[in-house]
Order: sequence, then C-alpha cells, then structure tokens
Amino acid sequence: MRTTEFFIPTLKETPTDAVVISHQLMLRAGMIRKLASGLYTWLPLGLRTLRKIERIVREEMDNAGGIELLMPAIQPAELWQESERWEQYGPELLRIKDRHQRDFCVGPTHEEVITDIARNELSSYKQLPLNFYQIQTKFRDEIRPRFGIMRAREFVMKDAYSFHLDEDSMQQTYERMHTAYCNIFDRLGLNYRPVVADSGSIGGSTSHEFHVLAESGEDAIAFSNSSQYAANVEKAVALPDTTECPAPSAELSKVATPNQHTIADIASFFSVEPKQTLKTLVVHGQPDEQGNTTLVALIIRGDHQLNEIKAESIHSVATPLTFASDAEIQAQLNCQPGSIGPVGLSTPIVVDHSAAHLADFICGANEDGYHYTGANWQRDCQYTTVADIRNVVEGDPSPCGQGELVIKRGIEVGHIFQLGSKYSKALNATVLDEKGKSVTMLMGCYGIGVSRIAAAAIEQKNDEHGIIWPDAIAPFQIGIVPLKMDKSEQVKTITEQVYQQLTEAGFDVLLDDRDRKTSPGVKFAEMELIGIPHRLVIGERGLAEDVIEYKHRSAENSTTVPVSEIVDFFKEKITL
Amino acid sequence: MRTTEFFIPTLKETPTDAVVISHQLMLRAGMIRKLASGLYTWLPLGLRTLRKIERIVREEMDNAGGIELLMPAIQPAELWQESERWEQYGPELLRIKDRHQRDFCVGPTHEEVITDIARNELSSYKQLPLNFYQIQTKFRDEIRPRFGIMRAREFVMKDAYSFHLDEDSMQQTYERMHTAYCNIFDRLGLNYRPVVADSGSIGGSTSHEFHVLAESGEDAIAFSNSSQYAANVEKAVALPDTTECPAPSAELSKVATPNQHTIADIASFFSVEPKQTLKTLVVHGQPDEQGNTTLVALIIRGDHQLNEIKAESIHSVATPLTFASDAEIQAQLNCQPGSIGPVGLSTPIVVDHSAAHLADFICGANEDGYHYTGANWQRDCQYTTVADIRNVVEGDPSPCGQGELVIKRGIEVGHIFQLGSKYSKALNATVLDEKGKSVTMLMGCYGIGVSRIAAAAIEQKNDEHGIIWPDAIAPFQIGIVPLKMDKSEQVKTITEQVYQQLTEAGFDVLLDDRDRKTSPGVKFAEMELIGIPHRLVIGERGLAEDVIEYKHRSAENSTTVPVSEIVDFFKEKITL
Repeated sequence: MRTTEFFIPTLKETPTDAVVISHQLMLRAGMIRKLASGLYTWLPLGLRTLRKIERIVREEMDNAGGIELLMPAIQPAELWQESERWEQYGPELLRIKDRHQRDFCVGPTHEEVITDIARNELSSYKQLPLNFYQIQTKFRDEIRPRFGIMRAREFVMKDAYSFHLDEDSMQQTYERMHTAYCNIFDRLGLNYRPVVADSGSIGGSTSHEFHVLAESGEDAIAFSNSSQYAANVEKAVALPDTTECPAPSAELSKVATPNQHTIADIASFFSVEPKQTLKTLVVHGQPDEQGNTTLVALIIRGDHQLNEIKAESIHSVATPLTFASDAEIQAQLNCQPGSIGPVGLSTPIVVDHSAAHLADFICGANEDGYHYTGANWQRDCQYTTVADIRNVVEGDPSPCGQGELVIKRGIEVGHIFQLGSKYSKALNATVLDEKGKSVTMLMGCYGIGVSRIAAAAIEQKNDEHGIIWPDAIAPFQIGIVPLKMDKSEQVKTITEQVYQQLTEAGFDVLLDDRDRKTSPGVKFAEMELIGIPHRLVIGERGLAEDVIEYKHRSAENSTTVPVSEIVDFFKEKITL
Repeated sequence: MRTTEFFIPTLKETPTDAVVISHQLMLRAGMIRKLASGLYTWLPLGLRTLRKIERIVREEMDNAGGIELLMPAIQPAELWQESERWEQYGPELLRIKDRHQRDFCVGPTHEEVITDIARNELSSYKQLPLNFYQIQTKFRDEIRPRFGIMRAREFVMKDAYSFHLDEDSMQQTYERMHTAYCNIFDRLGLNYRPVVADSGSIGGSTSHEFHVLAESGEDAIAFSNSSQYAANVEKAVALPDTTECPAPSAELSKVATPNQHTIADIASFFSVEPKQTLKTLVVHGQPDEQGNTTLVALIIRGDHQLNEIKAESIHSVATPLTFASDAEIQAQLNCQPGSIGPVGLSTPIVVDHSAAHLADFICGANEDGYHYTGANWQRDCQYTTVADIRNVVEGDPSPCGQGELVIKRGIEVGHIFQLGSKYSKALNATVLDEKGKSVTMLMGCYGIGVSRIAAAAIEQKNDEHGIIWPDAIAPFQIGIVPLKMDKSEQVKTITEQVYQQLTEAGFDVLLDDRDRKTSPGVKFAEMELIGIPHRLVIGERGLAEDVIEYKHRSAENSTTVPVSEIVDFFKEKITL
C-alpha cells in the first residue's frame, strides 16, 4: 500500500477524553474515530488489524473443528423470554420494538439463538458433538462506555457454542477450545495467561478467562511463580497457614486512641505493621426461620482485603453481601465502625485463616476511641467460624501447592465456559440417545473479544513514540521510507523494486510515497506512532554501498541490509 | 471438508412459506434458517457462499482504489436530523432509544456517518478524491419482508462513498466504479446488466442499477437487441413514431356496448386488437394559482401501460400522481370510468405519442354503455399535449437509436449514484480548494447487496434437482462421493489421496464420507440439491481402469478422468 493511496489521519495532540494509552494511540494513529458514546468507526488502518485478528481466530477455530455460521444481530424477544433473560438481563440488553411494535433486542450474545437452531436442527446423538461459531458484531448498552474500543457498546466478538450428549464430550470440547485459544493468542504474538475464573452471570460451573497481561489491565490475576497456575484474584484460594499458631506473649491492654480510625492510623499510632492489626467489617447475617437477622462480623488482617464473593458463600452471611450501616452498628453494637473488634463482641464472628493465626494483635475495643493491644484468640476472644474470606496477596503460597503467588494485571480477551444444561433445558433442546431416550443436550460456550484484542495488544506493548505491534496483527509489517524519492532516480527505482519484491513475497508493506513537502522526520514519527514493526529507510548514502537501513520498532539502533538480500532477510524475520 | 465434520441440514420437503425458488432451495439445501420475520441465520454452507461473494467484492473494490473501513451499525439520531432524513425516512428506519433515552437508529445505509467522518477528517482538496467502502450488516424494517434473504430486514451490504472537489472527479470515480462492478459480476459468474435507473429517494442525478437476469426478477428491464443499451422499464424512453399519421378512413359512429368495460371486453366486442383502442385514465391536475384543480385525462393505446413517473412529470398533472375516484369522475364527467374517451371531453387531454398516431380508433363515448368507433384526432377530438407517458414494450425502437427493445426481468443487486452535494451540503462537509476557498465536496455512492447476490444467483440458475452454482461462489467447487468406502480399501485410499491432492491444490472440496447407512442415491441427490458444480464418484469399477467418474452439475452425462490426471483436470476447468 502506498501512503498517498491510503488514509491515515494521524493526530499530533492526544485527545483529552482518552484516558488509557490504547485509546489515545488508536485515535492518534488514525485507527478509530468515535461516532457516539461507545460507538467507533474502524478507519482503514484499524480495520487491517481487526481483520488480521479475525483471520487468526477463524483459522484456529476451524482447525479445532469449529463450524462457522452467522446469526442475526437483531433477535426476537420470545427466545429471551424462554430463557428468562428478557427480565433478568439488565439495561445492557438494548430492547427495541420494530414497526409492528414487536419486541426485539440488539444481541449482546447468542446463547438463545444458537440453542433455538440446535433444538430445531438436531434430533439424534449421532449428530453430536457440534461446535458452532461466528465472528459477529454485538451490542451491549454499557452504562459508562469507556477506554475507546476496550469497553465499547458495539464490538466484534467471536462466540462459539458447542452441543453434547454428555459431560465427557463437553469436557473434551472444552479442552480442545482451551488449546485453540492458546494457539490463537500465541499466534497473535501476545503475552497472555489462561486463568481460572468465576463463571459470573452466564451460568455453568467451570470456566477459564484468557488475559492479555498489561499494567493497565482492569483485572488482577494471581500466578504461581513456579507452576502454570493462574487465577483471577477473586477466585484464587488463600491457603491457611498450617504451622502452629504462635502463643500469646503480651497482656491484653486497652489503650485510648483518639481520632485513630483507619488501619493506617492505628498501625502508625502503635508503630506496628498493618498485618499485626485486625480489620472488622460488619455485614448482615442470613435471616433465621422466623426472618430475624443479626449482624455478623467479618475479621481479616489489617493488610488484607475482604473477598466479597468468598464472604458471601459463608452460610451465616446474607446473600447478596450487604454491609451494615453506621447507624445499625451504632444501634446494635453501641460504637462506631472504626472501633469494632472481637473482644467482647456479641455478634457471630467469621475470621479469616490468616487473622486467626495472629497472636498479640491490635483490634478495636468496641468503645469509641479505644483499641486493645496484646489481644489473643481463645484467651481474650472467640470466633464462630474460620474461613477463607480475603483476596490473595503477593507472597501467599500458590493454591496449586507449588511456589508463591505473584499478582499481575490483565485484560480479559477470552472466556470459555462449560454451560451445562442452562440454556438447553430452558429451551428444551433435546436429542434422542442411543436407546431412543430424549436427553437434554449439554453446552459449552467460548468467547473472544476480537476488537478488544487490538486495544489489549497496544496496552501490552507501546512506548513514548507510539504503538509496537506484534508482526501477526500489525496493520503493515514493513514500512518503507524513501529519502528524496522525487529527486533521486536511484532511490525511486530501488524503492519501487523493493516495494514490489516484498509485496509479491506476501508481506504487508506500507510505502510512504509522500513527496518532499512531508519531511523524513514526520514520516519516521508516523511510522513509529502507527507501530509498524519493521522499517526500511532507502537513501542515496546507503545505496552507494548497496545497502538499506533497517530498524525494528523496538530496537535502539538501526542496521543495514544488502539490497539483494532484502526479501530473504524478512523471510527470516517474519512468519507469514 | 468432510461431510461428517460439517453441518448441512437438508430438507426433503419444500417449506410451505417459501414462495420463490431461491428461498425454497436455500432452506432445503441447509444454507439459511429463519429466526424471525426477515431475520435469517446463515448456516455453515450458506456462509461459505456469502464469504466468497464478499471476497470478490472486496478484491475488486481494492483494485479500483476503494479504501475499506467499518462503521457502526447503530447510529446517533443527530446526524439523521442534520440530513433531515430522521423525519423523511419512513418506518423502514428502525428508530431506537438507548438506556439513557437517547435516539439512535439501526443503520439502513451510511451516508450520514461517512459524511460526518469526511467533514471531520478532510480539510484540503489535496486529500481528494477518496473512495471509502465497507462490507457491513444493515437493517431495514421492511413492512413485508419476503423471499428469504432476497428481501430480508437484516442483510449484508457493500456500501461505498466517494468524495470529490468537482464534477469531473465525481464522474471519473463513478466510471471506475461502473467498471469495478462489471468486474465483480463477471467474476461472480452471473449473467447481469448495468441499466440506466431512476435514482429514487437517495437523491442525485445519475445512476445505474446492476441487475442479475432471472425470469423471477421483480424488475423489468428494457434492452436493445443491437447495442449495450439497457434501462429500467420505468426509465426507458418510448420514441415517437416519426412516420406520418395515417389518414382517417372511417366514419365516427356511436355504438351501444352494454356491460363492456375493459379494453379486453371492447377489443373482443368489436373484434379488433387492443392496440386499435384507447385507454383513458383520469387523474388530478396541478392546482392553479387560486388552488383550483381540474381533472386531467391521460390517454394511451389500449395495449400499453401508463408510466406513472413519466406522467407525473407532465406540467398539468398534480404531483404526486393521484387517480380521480369513480365518484369524482361521475360528478365531473357525468359517466363511469369505463366509458371515458376524448370525443367531447371537457378536461385537458394528455395523449401518448403512440395513441396520438392512431387513426379510426375505438374509445369511450363519455356516456355509460357507449363507445365510438372510427374516431380520429383533429377531425373528431383534440388533445392538449402529446408526450411520452407509457412504459416501453418489446418491439419498441431502442432509445439509443439502434435496434429494437427486448424486455427481460432482473433482480437488482447493485446500484451506483452520483449524489452530488445532497449530504455534504446538509452536513456542511467542505474542504479548501487550491485558492484557499471553502468548497462543499461532491459525493458518489455505490452499493452492492452482498447477501442478495446469493439468492439472485440461485434464481438465475437452478433446475428441478436444486441449485447450480457458478464455480466462483459455490460453497464447495468439487464434491466427492466414494462408493462403499467402508468396504473397499482401494476406494478409501484413492478417495483420501484425491481429496488431499485437490485440497492442497487450493480447491474447495466436500468429501461425503458418511458410511453405508446413507445410500449413494441420497448422497448424489444432496450434492445436486446444494449445487456443487463438479462431482466425482470414486468406485471400484472405475478404479479397475484407473479412472474416476466426473459429472458437471448441469451436464446430462458423466465422463471419466484418469486418477493420475485429476488435479490437472480441475486446474483446467476451474479458475482459482
């Protein structure tokens, strides 16, 4: 492609409404433009990357036995009513009426539609397993669309749905998809991890998320430093310390702590580490048979964070988890939230393993402006339950039994689920088994955020000059900047020759053929901004020695390549 | 692809709600399934054809300098309000509200969005001309979706929009697109014609439609039998007969014609051809300055059809064209519509050229139950205006001056327009010209109904056994049916070998690897139904002589090809 025949409207200034780097760079590089909140046009440069991602996803889905189809974006309400999601799904489901006042939605996902197809078209176990996928535009009416295409309302997704006679088959396809996803992200050239995930609202029991690692990621992921284990921080188990609990060595002592409310205040006041203190959070308990509720105290170490999903799974805690108000605490416990502690507390106490393992700790005295020091379990106070109710932190032992946890941030770009019979049961999607008995099919579903991958790749790799694309999804793999092409016949001839050779060899090449009114400095800066991984500079000086200057986008310095070897040079460097 | 790893849910019965053959065959061949009125899922087989059409369209658009981008399906109302189409566009525009009650639509076309991009991104004549295109899913809320994907509500379209400084540039790109469209339809392997068209509601002055010829087509197209001229019947000019008008040879005579109302009745009653009679249609006239209207009589030959678009362009006729009611005719002309004629008529009379060229004609006597015979213009009655107000018919001289017109039916699959400044003016899309003066850009727009092409191709070519695909868009080009593969090692070995060789050579091959429970007869019938153009049958009998049976889908009989020559045989036959 020649720059003069293409369209790359780069911006010098960073648009003020773009917060994250990928959004800024996609706007600046002329990859996308905003049409309205959460709605983006993919400009020609951006679309090239999007299509490359699509192609890799498609090829690997095909390799893994996926069968591509294409379902409508607009879906009838009736199917969503059958699955009961018409009512359950929040306002992200864009519900619309057609000219005849019939209800439809703009599809955020396609479980209902594919299950409808399956129940109509499949009748026998002999047709199973089947794994259908599509690459299609979806719509979710996010309350606060942000970060450009990272969390847009309209976006491109690959969604796959598999159908099975039994659990074994579902498990097999799930594993095949797990492998296919690894192949996809490997080929995309991204640093990623499959992580054990909470399956969230879609339902089902087993799921993995695929995260592209990036400091700016919205999700925290816990990894083992010596195994393949990785899990969403919310899902990672904090193993209890199995060593013996240290014995008390201090006296219980009530100390006046005026105006010291937070853990940081208290640790500083007593000159101890926060991990020597207790944090007590008061929530509503599960109502008893008469409907009466008490408050429940959740106690963790001062340096830890409560994991609400884990806490919610404790029997005595009300679902969904709700914190007691200051007024409720004052009324029932007779003090302010900042001074609650286990000593003498009347409510049931759920204590985290690590908090239960402390001795001589500092905690609230259940009296405004006072704390205890030298407090100890058993001797000074009792707990009702010990459980895992905190988020894991760096240095925790890995739940897999090998090594310690490291926490990194990631961007979710894929998600695979074993759905089981959630949708097939609701829509009565059955087949006859070998004995002629009607059986509800089991399902898996497998999503990839195709458009989001473009942003995630940029979040993972960029520098102060712009994007750094992996070869596989760069809009162009090689950029050519000729120097003074309109003055030097030699530069012009060699440039055209190299451009043609590389293009014919199958590389995606961008030749910046703009005339001298655009300076080489501007051309270099734009090639760096749009992130072309390989750059050639063709000038008279080099050609005098039959060489062309080459620089990788992330290299410090350039090298030279003989003109005659240029195609082989790239065949070596770039996997087509 | 192997049949057992693919998904082709064919139907034996023709679904009762499918009227046209392409809809019936797409359902029966397992290409599409209906989700709701006008909403179809593209099943795997159908999607293969759709993608092939897309690829050819994309390649030829790229070759013609088009630059691909991708605009959102959901569009904000504000842009449509700027162009005034928010109010003008009928209920086909699906207007929706998001969660914040802001107005959007599901885009039926993208003039507004692309013009918004152009006005934001283009500032100088140096950036022009530019021609952007996308292949994207559109939605039009048709009041009566029908014929399957032929007139669906959600459909895939290629839409392109070009931007220009002046008319010459707009004309050049228009011609380049005309050529590109011919290349596309040539490559698709379809019998098609570009025809001069009315530009309809999108606006602008010059346009061509591209029609795939098929007997079932909704549109009638007039062709010259000795030139490239082709025009929509509504748009084709009926040239006046330049020979001298025949002289009267009969006396005017009033004849009682009880219960004879239609042209057919009258022609039969008098034993003449309908072309010797006059048909008089009464419409409302253009109001005068005081707002008073009279009726106007439009008179054509009995064998002709009124062309309403032509009639509407007559100055004395009201716009839009509205027919007078029976009551109005009775009140003002004192007789019933079936007995109106020019003799003694008080209204202005607009007569078609061919009707004006008649002598001794039969017409209504403006008295119920009476007609005149032997009527003649000038002598017996006068007309106010002579004009072209009828549809052309076969045998009319071609407006191009060469040959006679032939009428064929077509399916519109493409449309190119010179839009001019309709949208750029409304949205104030300007650039600075060479002198630094702000100029409103001119635009062209170019659409192809990508999904509709699949149906049109089927309408054009099918037989009692099913679809007959052109090679270029066949879901599979070659089908292999092995006989008794599970019994004969030789058949199995050669089948696998041939399948692999052809696949590696780049052909799309479907190997029907179902076991003996599916009879060869069923396999043959399905290959014919789904329209695979080239079929190989591999059996022991042929292999004994080292040959494979070959048959083209539209051939009567099969031939044989030596096993060793099979790849070369297809390289000769199929253009990849």
